Amino acid sequence: MNGTCKSPIRWGMVGGGEGAFIGGVHRIAARLDGQYDLIAGAFSSDAERARRSGAALGLPPERSYGSFEEMASTEAARPDGIEAVSIVTPNHMHLPVARAFMKAGIHVICDKPLTTSAQAARDFLAEQTNSDALFVLTHNYPGTPMVRQAREMVALGAIGTLRHVQVEYVQDWLTEPADAANKQAAWRTDPSKSGAAGALGDIGTHAYQLACFVTGQRAGRVAADLTAFVPGRQVDDNAAILMRYPSGAKGMLWASQVSPGNENGLSIRVYGDTGGLEWQQENPNRLWFTRFGEPKQLLTRGGAGANAAANAVTRVPGGHPEGYLEAFATIYTSAAQAIRAHRGGLDPAQEFLLTTLEEGVHGMAFVDACLRSSARDASWEPIQTQL
Amino acid sequence: MNGTCKSPIRWGMVGGGEGAFIGGVHRIAARLDGQYDLIAGAFSSDAERARRSGAALGLPPERSYGSFEEMASTEAARPDGIEAVSIVTPNHMHLPVARAFMKAGIHVICDKPLTTSAQAARDFLAEQTNSDALFVLTHNYPGTPMVRQAREMVALGAIGTLRHVQVEYVQDWLTEPADAANKQAAWRTDPSKSGAAGALGDIGTHAYQLACFVTGQRAGRVAADLTAFVPGRQVDDNAAILMRYPSGAKGMLWASQVSPGNENGLSIRVYGDTGGLEWQQENPNRLWFTRFGEPKQLLTRGGAGANAAANAVTRVPGGHPEGYLEAFATIYTSAAQAIRAHRGGLDPAQEFLLTTLEEGVHGMAFVDACLRSSARDASWEPIQTQL
Amino acid sequence: MNGTCKSPIRWGMVGGGEGAFIGGVHRIAARLDGQYDLIAGAFSSDAERARRSGAALGLPPERSYGSFEEMASTEAARPDGIEAVSIVTPNHMHLPVARAFMKAGIHVICDKPLTTSAQAARDFLAEQTNSDALFVLTHNYPGTPMVRQAREMVALGAIGTLRHVQVEYVQDWLTEPADAANKQAAWRTDPSKSGAAGALGDIGTHAYQLACFVTGQRAGRVAADLTAFVPGRQVDDNAAILMRYPSGAKGMLWASQVSPGNENGLSIRVYGDTGGLEWQQENPNRLWFTRFGEPKQLLTRGGAGANAAANAVTRVPGGHPEGYLEAFATIYTSAAQAIRAHRGGLDPAQEFLLTTLEEGVHGMAFVDACLRSSARDASWEPIQTQL
Amino acid sequence: MNGTCKSPIRWGMVGGGEGAFIGGVHRIAARLDGQYDLIAGAFSSDAERARRSGAALGLPPERSYGSFEEMASTEAARPDGIEAVSIVTPNHMHLPVARAFMKAGIHVICDKPLTTSAQAARDFLAEQTNSDALFVLTHNYPGTPMVRQAREMVALGAIGTLRHVQVEYVQDWLTEPADAANKQAAWRTDPSKSGAAGALGDIGTHAYQLACFVTGQRAGRVAADLTAFVPGRQVDDNAAILMRYPSGAKGMLWASQVSPGNENGLSIRVYGDTGGLEWQQENPNRLWFTRFGEPKQLLTRGGAGANAAANAVTRVPGGHPEGYLEAFATIYTSAAQAIRAHRGGLDPAQEFLLTTLEEGVHGMAFVDACLRSSARDASWEPIQTQL
Repeated sequence: MNGTCKSPIRWGMVGGGEGAFIGGVHRIAARLDGQYDLIAGAFSSDAERARRSGAALGLPPERSYGSFEEMASTEAARPDGIEAVSIVTPNHMHLPVARAFMKAGIHVICDKPLTTSAQAARDFLAEQTNSDALFVLTHNYPGTPMVRQAREMVALGAIGTLRHVQVEYVQDWLTEPADAANKQAAWRTDPSKSGAAGALGDIGTHAYQLACFVTGQRAGRVAADLTAFVPGRQVDDNAAILMRYPSGAKGMLWASQVSPGNENGLSIRVYGDTGGLEWQQENPNRLWFTRFGEPKQLLTRGGAGANAAANAVTRVPGGHPEGYLEAFATIYTSAAQAIRAHRGGLDPAQEFLLTTLEEGVHGMAFVDACLRSSARDASWEPIQTQL
Repeated sequence: MNGTCKSPIRWGMVGGGEGAFIGGVHRIAARLDGQYDLIAGAFSSDAERARRSGAALGLPPERSYGSFEEMASTEAARPDGIEAVSIVTPNHMHLPVARAFMKAGIHVICDKPLTTSAQAARDFLAEQTNSDALFVLTHNYPGTPMVRQAREMVALGAIGTLRHVQVEYVQDWLTEPADAANKQAAWRTDPSKSGAAGALGDIGTHAYQLACFVTGQRAGRVAADLTAFVPGRQVDDNAAILMRYPSGAKGMLWASQVSPGNENGLSIRVYGDTGGLEWQQENPNRLWFTRFGEPKQLLTRGGAGANAAANAVTRVPGGHPEGYLEAFATIYTSAAQAIRAHRGGLDPAQEFLLTTLEEGVHGMAFVDACLRSSARDASWEPIQTQL
Repeated sequence: MNGTCKSPIRWGMVGGGEGAFIGGVHRIAARLDGQYDLIAGAFSSDAERARRSGAALGLPPERSYGSFEEMASTEAARPDGIEAVSIVTPNHMHLPVARAFMKAGIHVICDKPLTTSAQAARDFLAEQTNSDALFVLTHNYPGTPMVRQAREMVALGAIGTLRHVQVEYVQDWLTEPADAANKQAAWRTDPSKSGAAGALGDIGTHAYQLACFVTGQRAGRVAADLTAFVPGRQVDDNAAILMRYPSGAKGMLWASQVSPGNENGLSIRVYGDTGGLEWQQENPNRLWFTRFGEPKQLLTRGGAGANAAANAVTRVPGGHPEGYLEAFATIYTSAAQAIRAHRGGLDPAQEFLLTTLEEGVHGMAFVDACLRSSARDASWEPIQTQL
Repeated sequence: MNGTCKSPIRWGMVGGGEGAFIGGVHRIAARLDGQYDLIAGAFSSDAERARRSGAALGLPPERSYGSFEEMASTEAARPDGIEAVSIVTPNHMHLPVARAFMKAGIHVICDKPLTTSAQAARDFLAEQTNSDALFVLTHNYPGTPMVRQAREMVALGAIGTLRHVQVEYVQDWLTEPADAANKQAAWRTDPSKSGAAGALGDIGTHAYQLACFVTGQRAGRVAADLTAFVPGRQVDDNAAILMRYPSGAKGMLWASQVSPGNENGLSIRVYGDTGGLEWQQENPNRLWFTRFGEPKQLLTRGGAGANAAANAVTRVPGGHPEGYLEAFATIYTSAAQAIRAHRGGLDPAQEFLLTTLEEGVHGMAFVDACLRSSARDASWEPIQTQL
């Protein structure tokens, strides 16, 4: 995965201007494997800020737009217009932007979560069913080699029949009331921009999606106890969730942004009737594997126990840590592969292990079920991808 | 804590003969600080096995009894009879044995859980309210120095107002159906001997008690999803529990005996509005502490950050690991202190941080609430120490 | 550090074609922050392989050269010729290539170690003293944020007066005789290409350079015991080294490529009279700090204890691991800053914490002293940067 | 190992009175498995302190002696006199005390190091060659189950032919000049009491002995660089040592008592041509094992990968940590087994994996060689057990 591409994909961005966090991450991720050229953008809903950001990123003024609508229509009309756009706005703008570009035949790479409500997600899916443009949701953790290894191992029976999933995503950065000056915190705790879910939507969705990816199973019902511990906060900052799977497996999911001492503590442990797997995001090059009755093995990215699924997305040898940006870059490179396959008339589907629109809708349905459950005193609620 | 005692307590044991596990642990624990002399026992309900075990432990034949009733009455009548007895039988025998000895004025040190049902526990508490004999339940993890440190720190406000408790106790030894030859597994999975709770009663109670000890708070309500994953098993082997505290704090508790790769994975993490503490039983000499906004600190038993509560029960310097047996020995030594204080007419109460009968009843009420909740599809059920 | 550059540096590469490892790493590193455009290359001494590699990397045929001499003269003559070249050949070719480009006024970014002998290194330094072209050696580990933090902390007195340095670099990939098909192993164990030092030159130099970087001190004398454990191997695969510093500090350095169970185990521990610091490359986002008499602190990249030196080269928040490629990219981005400063007539010197030619010569003198010492039964030998 | 012994060994102690550290450790170790009864002692060279200590330990006045000579002769003459004595005085008194008791036919259990000089050690060995009394040196770390497992694995070829041994013992408690009030520090830094070696003698001997125990090999030559970093200190507080084995293996040993952030950091890593083993004393229940070319395995005490050598000295199941005192107790219990075997006329030799007098002499020869080497600028010096 270390080449420079002969013909990078012409690429634009909506959101991600000055003061944003995730936009910069997307740009590094897109550059890392050299598969994209950033040639257009609408970096802010504030026209002046958008212009300044575009200039700072080296775009010619005519490709730095003041609105996403203008960008979509203008780029679609240019012979050298962008082929793909990344959407890195606050959540409430994801679908309006995606709609505009997909209508214009431009592929969409969209930050998660998909949107702010399950209903909006389902409507969008229905609307786009026949779209010729691809849609990719950037759940980035499945880009990690050892996560791909875990998924492949579970699929091949390494742990036997799944029994219990223990997944958590624990942070501490919202332990205190958000400073108004903290742009990241501000929109994430404003339900009109982030949706009704706080920690649940921001990081609980990552945890749940990771569990789906690794186990190959979706929960059927959830019982959720959501709390806003910080006085005055309008959305949950701590989510305690029980899960039941149609297969009979059980699960627990904990998401918190108010647990001092935790930076980005995403971890997953899955246990079956013959083995177990354990992975922690903050030390992502390692995967623990136990066959019941045998010593625990430490599998490492690039190491003797790495499988083909991990090796396919490994850039440097074992012991040379790859991290968050590499995993994110793998999502971008996989998206580039999907775009190229699509050009060839193939259906790229899930072949590249990307998160699809349908999966994004399922993620929103998970959020919705948790919100309903919590409102009903942690009753069991079904996850309804389809109504 | 390294002296040899001038006048050890005269001590006996019920249960713990050949083939038993926990009896040997109690004997080491009692010996470690030299506070007890084992001088009598009824080591098995099988008379021949009882006799052989007594001989193997060096007791004269007349102090090795075939039944606990005979032992209680005979020892009570001897001028040099035992002052205290430890009960290390399967759960269903705890209270009959305790009743016999307490009635005879002999102090009781009883393995956990207290008994097999909450009702029996409450009845026993009512019955013993005016007993002059002491009763100590051997929840051993509170004997660990860094657990005592954590409790003291929480009590002194180190983490501020408690928000979330994450506690788990994960093992794998019951991943497969219990071999009939495995005596430990056999009675623990037989409801007539262990009670209706499996993993919940065996290790979930430890986890819950640890959470109570560290936080100084008891949960008010629980929602539990109990599962028996192993085909044919009559008791739960996996327990997923949500907790709500009267203070507004929340918690999650996971107990499992079917998670391959976990030996004795008891851990607790507690978070408040100004800090967090994290402890893992398998590496018990370490305690992580974070004041929100400052770097994480690694506090060690015997180290620069150890407090008086930890130092009071520390035997060897930092870096020389103390473990499971040392913590258990601390419970025994604390019990010896309580017995000596009692001789002096003082009320030893909770001064020695031992688990009282009333706490044992609370633990059974926790189990009972979880069983009820799970039977009602994980409804919220109150923990009823008193009816 | 997440922007895309307005005017990337025009950049070429010598070496790093098909089958190479480190060339690909340099290309990712150069792309990650968007500071370079790869526009020319001589990717192999094999002309056909060079051509194929150039094409695969998307270069037009006229910028893909069959020899580095041709590349240097042609590029120097073009108005749009490269401004900088990276040299990623086996060690014996580093200086001939560097000479050609520096003579042509093209800045050089050169893989380590500098060359195959101390004498050649000193000669080259003498020769280039007045060169207007910059020379940067890609010791990449100093690009790691927590390594920069450690250096800054030592410089500011966090550990007091340095006493002992414990540094090691342990791998296992050469445990068995190198397969002829393993191109990486083949040239590294061939003294005509790698120099007389094996593990010492390949990884011992990294370990020593890291120690210099963090402590701000150079050893004065070394006593080395080098061994070739694998039968038939012509260079050392295990190096045990004692170090003495002019300041009175002592050190131990162990480099091994034959230690099963170690992938890329570079670590450093430095102790002074008031504190200690400990860092491990395989978990690079963490730095342990102890003030004597206080609890150990875990400082994390992006965390509460990160200092300005670390934050200056941090791309994503704490808990989102950065790794080997990010550190390497920081070296490239720092080199770009140095090149831009140079354009402005400034002397970029060591301001950007890059490894200079003079430091590369010192590194070769370290290797030379170790070889001499080992040949004399581990006698103490001075490190002679200058003769 | 959890029984109480029918007929404990009658046992005494010299040294270990008020204010001592290691005496208390020996008493706990002797009690833990119930194999010894403490019935006599000469706890201090200060008669009043000796008396007070004896009383505090529950001895009758006539068994609490003011001098070790009196104790040896009196106890030897009593029909119920002690069978074994433990010597826990400062180093310079070990041999005079041992001589007195062995002459009296009383077995000796002696704290390490054997004495203060190699010559004295060799003389003592020559003198005691035909003694009927047993002599055991309490190197305690070989009592650790996973250390025994490592030794057995190496002996059975698990790592192939030994190549490199990396052993270290790092502490920080002598980072600053010893407070006169710190009795432990005071005698350890006084050459007239501890011998000419400081950290080397106190902990370097443990590290070296551990390496001998695990590898089954003794170094032939050493090159040592000893330093007294603390101003005014008369003995080394930091020792950097290279080792060469007759077999061709190499080694490095680092002992330090001035490295802030290290409590009791004893660790060993051994590598052969087919595998590697790694163990750390502060987390003693774990042993890492790698067969070259396979994933790393985590072997645990009591776990699936534990071998018979480990299981023979394991008291509680996996995941219930055993630590320093348990390992020490295993030495005592092994000594009891040796004493009982001796009673039966057998030669207990090394069957019980105890450190013999001859091994103690070798340890002193190691210290002597290091002192000579350091005095000669780290020349290679042979370890001369015999002259």
